[in-house]
Amino acid sequence: MWGIALQRHSEVALARQLYQILREKMTDGQLRPGEALPSTRELAKQLALSRNTICEAYEMLAAEGYIISSQGAKTRVADGLQLEKAAPAFTENTPPAAPAIAADFQTGRPDIRQFPRHLWLQLLRKATNELSPQLWGYSGPAGLPVLRREISAWLYRSRGLAAEPQDIFITAGATQGLKLLAGEGQAMILEDPCHSGLRQVLQNRGISIYPVPVDRQGLQTGNLNRNGACAVYVTPSHQFPLGGILPASRRAELVRYARENGLYLLEDDYDSEFRYAGPPVAPLYSLDPQQVIYIGTFSKILFPALRIGYVILPRRLQARWRHLRTYADVQNPPFAQAALAEFLQNRKLDRHIQNMRRLYGHRRHILLQTLTAMFGPGWSAWGDTAGLHLAVEFPGMRFDDMFVRHCQSKGLRLATVETHCLRKGEHRDKLLLGYGHLEPAEIKQGLALLRTAFPA
Amino acid sequence: MWGIALQRHSEVALARQLYQILREKMTDGQLRPGEALPSTRELAKQLALSRNTICEAYEMLAAEGYIISSQGAKTRVADGLQLEKAAPAFTENTPPAAPAIAADFQTGRPDIRQFPRHLWLQLLRKATNELSPQLWGYSGPAGLPVLRREISAWLYRSRGLAAEPQDIFITAGATQGLKLLAGEGQAMILEDPCHSGLRQVLQNRGISIYPVPVDRQGLQTGNLNRNGACAVYVTPSHQFPLGGILPASRRAELVRYARENGLYLLEDDYDSEFRYAGPPVAPLYSLDPQQVIYIGTFSKILFPALRIGYVILPRRLQARWRHLRTYADVQNPPFAQAALAEFLQNRKLDRHIQNMRRLYGHRRHILLQTLTAMFGPGWSAWGDTAGLHLAVEFPGMRFDDMFVRHCQSKGLRLATVETHCLRKGEHRDKLLLGYGHLEPAEIKQGLALLRTAFPA
Repeated sequence: MWGIALQRHSEVALARQLYQILREKMTDGQLRPGEALPSTRELAKQLALSRNTICEAYEMLAAEGYIISSQGAKTRVADGLQLEKAAPAFTENTPPAAPAIAADFQTGRPDIRQFPRHLWLQLLRKATNELSPQLWGYSGPAGLPVLRREISAWLYRSRGLAAEPQDIFITAGATQGLKLLAGEGQAMILEDPCHSGLRQVLQNRGISIYPVPVDRQGLQTGNLNRNGACAVYVTPSHQFPLGGILPASRRAELVRYARENGLYLLEDDYDSEFRYAGPPVAPLYSLDPQQVIYIGTFSKILFPALRIGYVILPRRLQARWRHLRTYADVQNPPFAQAALAEFLQNRKLDRHIQNMRRLYGHRRHILLQTLTAMFGPGWSAWGDTAGLHLAVEFPGMRFDDMFVRHCQSKGLRLATVETHCLRKGEHRDKLLLGYGHLEPAEIKQGLALLRTAFPA
Repeated sequence: MWGIALQRHSEVALARQLYQILREKMTDGQLRPGEALPSTRELAKQLALSRNTICEAYEMLAAEGYIISSQGAKTRVADGLQLEKAAPAFTENTPPAAPAIAADFQTGRPDIRQFPRHLWLQLLRKATNELSPQLWGYSGPAGLPVLRREISAWLYRSRGLAAEPQDIFITAGATQGLKLLAGEGQAMILEDPCHSGLRQVLQNRGISIYPVPVDRQGLQTGNLNRNGACAVYVTPSHQFPLGGILPASRRAELVRYARENGLYLLEDDYDSEFRYAGPPVAPLYSLDPQQVIYIGTFSKILFPALRIGYVILPRRLQARWRHLRTYADVQNPPFAQAALAEFLQNRKLDRHIQNMRRLYGHRRHILLQTLTAMFGPGWSAWGDTAGLHLAVEFPGMRFDDMFVRHCQSKGLRLATVETHCLRKGEHRDKLLLGYGHLEPAEIKQGLALLRTAFPA
């Protein structure tokens, strides 16, 4: 019968198989409009199937309007079904296999091997078990109240940042915070250099970028004379990537500038927990909570797969934020939020940060020591003794894309400061070395590889 | 000494308290530029604190540039610190308390009480335990390969949809899929009525909307004559909110139209699992996988807090999608993805859907029965026997915002079809009754309340 071949052992029900075969015959014109189909009894006999199966297939075809059956009349093929076969899929070229990575100096990577996974699983299990069943539905764009309270308390005890829980909004990470907030204007002032990912976020939104240069102390606030921007993006606690702490006088200047021009300050505090020569730097936020939007993340403190961050918002932006989050991705899942609240509440976070600060500080020391041992005195470190990466200047060197590819061919992954520059040419002699995720032996091995990529 | 009051029992370290107090005195001008600070020894004595505490506070102030200390000289206040106090926060008016909800006919709510939470927790624990430690870092914007494979297999066995795992991309839910895809053009053709949330997503992106009316069978493809749109959004399996199944001839017309005009078809398959008079309807996707973008979600099948959905993308959109997702919110957390893969792999999903289909089908029956009992014959149901809600027409009635508020005052939450209309006035006589999440007794109680809101 019409060359119908059914697969008796397929996971797809026979009725659906039959439906698909008949449908295809109608759309490609083998069965023509108005043509009569055999009765269900007849087709069942021909195909050695139960009549129920045929009825089910015919019902599917009828429900979707492929066939028309009326009481007492023959079942016929509907009009207007014919459709040329779809063109075959264009096949993407498979990218060439990347060489194996022997040493990876990527920035912004915490050491996830050190995270107390077992403890986290316990907390997650407990939190999920105890979560109100209602929260398995929708729980709102702002985040779980218990987590907002615990973040508020932690920010206060760890860095003296006083923010009410209702001003704290949970995000799916810092990138989301930036993306949602950046969409609210036409232009933004950026530090130059600043993270190239941020540039991507803004470019995707069609937002104009005004670069202001950065020196060893961070944003050069004396050069803030652009018009038309709606916000200044700034990393005052530890400039990315150069590492400066923004001095108090520039902070005051920045806040005055924002007030006078009606701009928001987007303070991205991506890793200020990890300062090795004193407590975390006080946030810009404290100077004016109605002018500063504070963006925080747990990706670097805990682990990136958590996908939890937060923003602290001026009151007049909060209703808008709820709206934007609702129509972006609705909300965070509540389970990890509840576990994180517990992690904060019983001070496990404070302890973890303390442990990691010691560990990362030691690794930084190893990095600096090994640089001296392998490269002599001909280099200098930029920035404060903080964070998970180091910007290193090698005077006279020119680190371009070719150099990066040359390193890659040796199995060495790293980035240049120049990658993060808006105006090119200023920082060609600087490399970025992410060390947080590397054991001392890995740091040494990586630097040895790097040495071989340098001119002899 | 300068009226410094420290709280000895605070969680905030004494050094940080001192730092904050001194900083405030500098920014508000009580301590003037150039003014000398007491030595650490002297201040320690005055405040009865250890000298270490004072040193730590001074180091914080120095690191951030509030004070300048040089060998042998007195420590002095830096220049340019003065800043007017921030204006007090504008306080949002607290919205008036909403009346308690006695009956809630919201659409799109699954019954989360029925979800096998205990089983899910077991799977989540197992999956998280077994997850490769690497996946606690970044695992990429496409989603876990194991989940993409399981979704591919499930789509094939449950509705004959053949998609390669590498064409399936995990999302944080259908809203995110729509938001990221909608941003790629200037204008979109929408069914009218269609979900008001989608309109919000598009309006937030500044995208123009061309409405095309819907009848009992879904989108009126004969009216597709707009230019300049980049895509048609369509719910062919179960039109939202009116409930029609798009007939085969209109499907063919739609695909031809999309091919001729170089448009994508965004097929939102939000609840096709729940059809009570036969198996799920075949997706439009099967007709042309390079023209159709298929959007699926597990929010309605499992539970909304999961925040996992997926899109099936034509090959030429995949690189762009990876880019957009990376710079939106990076990726989904891997834990629930791994648990869901297991839930699919061992057919727990198939069984859950089967159970829920039976349950929801029964509830729909109760709803229809109770409507007849309470409202007599003067109403008619729209759409196919499917989904979690029903559109009901009451000829002669005019359901406006006042009616909705009147219902709210009685503790009854529901929406009108008109809420979801782009061109107003066509569907004033229709209400939407979400029933999936309601027990039979709740349905009856809700309809009894609704009866009292009607004219006697």
